[in-house]
Amino acid sequence: MRRSPPIIGVIGAGQCDSTLYQLALDVGREIARRGAILVCGGLGGVMEAAARGAAAEGGLTLGILPGPSVQDANVYIRVPVATDMGQARNVIIVHTADALIAVSGGAGTLSEIGHALKVGKPVIGLHTIPNLHGVHYVKTAPEAVEHAFARIQSSTPTIPPRRFSAPLPDNGRS
Amino acid sequence: MRRSPPIIGVIGAGQCDSTLYQLALDVGREIARRGAILVCGGLGGVMEAAARGAAAEGGLTLGILPGPSVQDANVYIRVPVATDMGQARNVIIVHTADALIAVSGGAGTLSEIGHALKVGKPVIGLHTIPNLHGVHYVKTAPEAVEHAFARIQSSTPTIPPRRFSAPLPDNGRS
Amino acid sequence: MRRSPPIIGVIGAGQCDSTLYQLALDVGREIARRGAILVCGGLGGVMEAAARGAAAEGGLTLGILPGPSVQDANVYIRVPVATDMGQARNVIIVHTADALIAVSGGAGTLSEIGHALKVGKPVIGLHTIPNLHGVHYVKTAPEAVEHAFARIQSSTPTIPPRRFSAPLPDNGRS
Amino acid sequence: MRRSPPIIGVIGAGQCDSTLYQLALDVGREIARRGAILVCGGLGGVMEAAARGAAAEGGLTLGILPGPSVQDANVYIRVPVATDMGQARNVIIVHTADALIAVSGGAGTLSEIGHALKVGKPVIGLHTIPNLHGVHYVKTAPEAVEHAFARIQSSTPTIPPRRFSAPLPDNGRS
Repeated sequence: MRRSPPIIGVIGAGQCDSTLYQLALDVGREIARRGAILVCGGLGGVMEAAARGAAAEGGLTLGILPGPSVQDANVYIRVPVATDMGQARNVIIVHTADALIAVSGGAGTLSEIGHALKVGKPVIGLHTIPNLHGVHYVKTAPEAVEHAFARIQSSTPTIPPRRFSAPLPDNGRS
Repeated sequence: MRRSPPIIGVIGAGQCDSTLYQLALDVGREIARRGAILVCGGLGGVMEAAARGAAAEGGLTLGILPGPSVQDANVYIRVPVATDMGQARNVIIVHTADALIAVSGGAGTLSEIGHALKVGKPVIGLHTIPNLHGVHYVKTAPEAVEHAFARIQSSTPTIPPRRFSAPLPDNGRS
Repeated sequence: MRRSPPIIGVIGAGQCDSTLYQLALDVGREIARRGAILVCGGLGGVMEAAARGAAAEGGLTLGILPGPSVQDANVYIRVPVATDMGQARNVIIVHTADALIAVSGGAGTLSEIGHALKVGKPVIGLHTIPNLHGVHYVKTAPEAVEHAFARIQSSTPTIPPRRFSAPLPDNGRS
Repeated sequence: MRRSPPIIGVIGAGQCDSTLYQLALDVGREIARRGAILVCGGLGGVMEAAARGAAAEGGLTLGILPGPSVQDANVYIRVPVATDMGQARNVIIVHTADALIAVSGGAGTLSEIGHALKVGKPVIGLHTIPNLHGVHYVKTAPEAVEHAFARIQSSTPTIPPRRFSAPLPDNGRS
């Protein structure tokens, strides 16, 4: 029984120009403002920008890394996960996220979109690979996050945020 | 470049009696008190107890799940990761943790100990499979956590905790 | 130091109509006739058809399965590999194949094409998702296999087939 | 519906002395003589020795590799599988094999034994990590293979070997 906040994935290229970087940063900011966890691949480019935006808003950032070391995470990742599974980590990002926002991206992003569509996760496209059946294309960062949350709310039950300050019952099992 | 706090893994059986549950709960509490992230397999028994203890202290709990859905996480997991990779998720727990504490455990725990020893991660054993070369056996929860932190401090550079409240520099890339 | 024959991957939908089935079957036949190993996802539809075609020519068929049991393989798979890693097995197909031929296909195939392009493996498309940058589109089964072999020969050194009937040298290590 | 022969896994250290090498080689020979497929990790030491023994008898050898390239396989591997998943490939060996024989071995082998016991696969130990509950220890290569086959026959239905020379039925789907 899950008690975590919504989790939004941001996928995209490991290197990008300043326009895309700003776009991903805005997406990350908006995700954190709405109280969701951001999950990404934990490296540079779009992944770094989105994590940076989320971190700037005090958001929780989760990076699923392809290599064996958490040291590879960019500095905006609060919770690094080291898989040592290379590209197979893309599948983990997809399963972990409630919805995914693709910002730009190349072949790696294409694979993630494929995996997400395969399992029926909403995919929102922002300046990404065009004309993919099943991707919902938008033009701005706020639209992308707005649509991601709209899709989640329509498909998953509302989960009250867990209060971690609650005292632990002093008897045995939960 | 990692900026996350230390990450301590707790591994053990998915079902356990109340004595072991309390032991794992105490381990989780102590991990959180020291400011580390707890990572575990996200399910029941020892995993639940450790996450519960950490959550009770306001700690951050990370659950690496074998199935495809974050809904499988126990309610004390703040950050669930859905792998859909079955037992291969054990390897991810090992790579993500800086040190691992085994509480009781059977064959699954044995596999995790094997993976951890293979990559040189410290493994502390608490009422777990005996006589494994490379495992440091202790008798109490505080000893286990104390030893885990001692091993981390001697092998990894001290990392100042990241302040997420810092303002974002307003110029381009980091 | 590899001594295996070339390995050609065939990717595509797990269910398909008789036209696509025949197309994949012809692709499999041609792969086996040229002495290559066929690798696929080991299940139904395009995967079954390609394996069936290869098996009919006496070819070696390798099926990388998403589930935990080799019993899931279709009857034309000679060497089943059970991963229990769900969609992450797509990545294994890509790394194992020297070139990939996509026959029809949906989201799963899209993910495999993405992974293949990411690591620079040749991808030949046959009645598959159109307009993907980096995919070489053809119209017939012989063209697809012809192109796959042409791409392999230009990029990998020729490897003489290993003779398994050779006697083992009687001294220690190889 | 599987039609492959039995599959026996041989697990053990990537480096070994000549005594263990000969032991693993004898295990591989005997596996092939009985018509089973040998699966192993595809690299050196015990893995190479077992594959070499099986290849010398004309057996089919399957190597599940940790890296991204089939070129890493030892020369006795007929069917290499490149996973790029590091130690997680150990789990794939376990799921693929009907029974496993551990020859010597260290931490990696310990992880494989753990995974195998977890899913109930028979594990036969030959000069390997002692005193593991659930492992059946033997002293010679013939005993190891004999026991592996005995365990398989008692737990799985007999499967007639597939004849790949059979003509393909000329009507549509199978």
